[in-house]
Amino acid sequence: MKVVYVSYPATDSGERGGVLADTERALELRPLLEKHGHELVTTTETGEGLDRELAAAEVLITTPFWPVYLSRERIEGAPDLGLVITAGIGSDHIDWDVAREHGITVAEVTGSNVVSVAEHNVLQILALVRGFVPAHQQVRDGRWDVAEATAKAHDLEGKTVGIIGLGAIGARTALRLKAFDVTMLYYANHRRSPADESVLGVRYARLDRLVAESDVVCLALPLTDGSRALFDRDRLAAMKPGAWLVNTARGAVVDRDALVAALESGRLAGYAGDTWYPQPAPPDHPWRTMPQHAMTIHCSGMTVEAQRRIADGVQEMLRDHLAGDPLPADYVLVDPAAD
Amino acid sequence: MKVVYVSYPATDSGERGGVLADTERALELRPLLEKHGHELVTTTETGEGLDRELAAAEVLITTPFWPVYLSRERIEGAPDLGLVITAGIGSDHIDWDVAREHGITVAEVTGSNVVSVAEHNVLQILALVRGFVPAHQQVRDGRWDVAEATAKAHDLEGKTVGIIGLGAIGARTALRLKAFDVTMLYYANHRRSPADESVLGVRYARLDRLVAESDVVCLALPLTDGSRALFDRDRLAAMKPGAWLVNTARGAVVDRDALVAALESGRLAGYAGDTWYPQPAPPDHPWRTMPQHAMTIHCSGMTVEAQRRIADGVQEMLRDHLAGDPLPADYVLVDPAAD
Repeated sequence: MKVVYVSYPATDSGERGGVLADTERALELRPLLEKHGHELVTTTETGEGLDRELAAAEVLITTPFWPVYLSRERIEGAPDLGLVITAGIGSDHIDWDVAREHGITVAEVTGSNVVSVAEHNVLQILALVRGFVPAHQQVRDGRWDVAEATAKAHDLEGKTVGIIGLGAIGARTALRLKAFDVTMLYYANHRRSPADESVLGVRYARLDRLVAESDVVCLALPLTDGSRALFDRDRLAAMKPGAWLVNTARGAVVDRDALVAALESGRLAGYAGDTWYPQPAPPDHPWRTMPQHAMTIHCSGMTVEAQRRIADGVQEMLRDHLAGDPLPADYVLVDPAAD
Repeated sequence: MKVVYVSYPATDSGERGGVLADTERALELRPLLEKHGHELVTTTETGEGLDRELAAAEVLITTPFWPVYLSRERIEGAPDLGLVITAGIGSDHIDWDVAREHGITVAEVTGSNVVSVAEHNVLQILALVRGFVPAHQQVRDGRWDVAEATAKAHDLEGKTVGIIGLGAIGARTALRLKAFDVTMLYYANHRRSPADESVLGVRYARLDRLVAESDVVCLALPLTDGSRALFDRDRLAAMKPGAWLVNTARGAVVDRDALVAALESGRLAGYAGDTWYPQPAPPDHPWRTMPQHAMTIHCSGMTVEAQRRIADGVQEMLRDHLAGDPLPADYVLVDPAAD
């Protein structure tokens, strides 16, 4: 059996011989697979070089941080493919319908990143609202202009935070924000129980009201046809003047150029998040240089601890697959056998 | 009556005509004082230029962000001085004993910064632990090296956070950290009640044990003779290897050069905070360029909301002083009349 793992390269600057999820350490899958006589191919290629590997691959493992766009054409060029695993969370880079047609199981490591991304949400909300990046930049630049650093720096206390999507990440974000004495609204396809709302400290609001009333909007929903460019020019214009937007969900939920315009005009006070489109973001991606941002490269779900959870989950799935057992149900997104 | 207000200058880059606490807007004290025929002098001078103003001043108002060091010599050169107000919190720039000798009341705006600094603590803890600064710098630099960004990025969940000082700021910091599923230790001169400890989610530990067991140490204590250079070379060496240190308290609680050495050797994984010594920090201050820091200039207690609270508090004190009434007791640090 041939397994292909596509990920980001090991860094030259790493002091500890790379990280668990890079192509060198490859989630420690090599000993597991080679012990059973299977082949592991690791690559950073996501174009034609990958297509050649996929021609005979039975299992493909990818990450959201260095994604492989798995289109109809590519799936049809991989006739032996039976299992596609996302080493992480978020499998919008895969065409689920075509995978199902071709009898391919799609799975991800459910839960592996939820705490990590919830923490990143709180970090980036605080960074934006409190004006961390410009106040830190002054340190680097040898400056000390308190008036400049504080003219737009606010407390989070007393603000209204609107969370869109209240799944595993959104709910954990709310739990962490609750002690900051904020008003929290949420919008989701399904309203939560009164007990859930009480424990999380959130109140339900229709999307339009949430967008109009929130000082901070936090996106915590998957990328689907319904959420693509949900924050387009009109939605951004419906936000409170001077509001902040945090998006660790998927870059494509926000319209690229409309966001740049809203920040350049000062309509929005700031944007943070760590998801981009495409990924890796090219060096000239306009979000890198737009004003008032506190973005990171896509890394929030890839802490040392998250990588360990991801490696454990992928190994669990491969062991089941090798043994001919079904994968844990909570990992499976597309199960052709169930159709 | 002559009132002198010493603060930081209005920035040239401010879009809204400066901030409330700069020398131009001067906490909106001018109308209050001039209505009653009193004189307000505002200055950014902290040296000889200030001494000339103090010769005939009855009230001096300073900020911790642009401090005036009020030594014996300076106090003796201001014979009419009867009231010194800190527009903010933290009055270690004033020699309290000499003030008392000379019948000078010393007061600060108790409570004005506590939420602001507690939020800054959580922000800077998350920024350090999650490796925010280098992951953001990659965005600015046009790079996308996930392995480098994540090699030292950790979740806060499951870590041990030790808080030194559990006053108004330390306790609010604990309340906000509690939902992150951390183990929290605290050290303070007085142990809190079981109910307080339970609500805050903290357990008491002697200082040595806290330092030895904490992944993150957060300083939330005032600068006193007992806390000056509390984190010297020996204390830093007693911290867990790879621990993070956050200090929004006062820069001088940490030994300047010992800290640089601990970061350069990799013994500490990172340092954040926003207090320095001296202040303003000179352009060549070694903390500006030491590795693995996420510092800001001293601004955490100067958000737009905090400036409003400070202005309200200083105005309240001046009104009482002009009316010959005692200041609110919770603002007063040195009350010569009570001796």
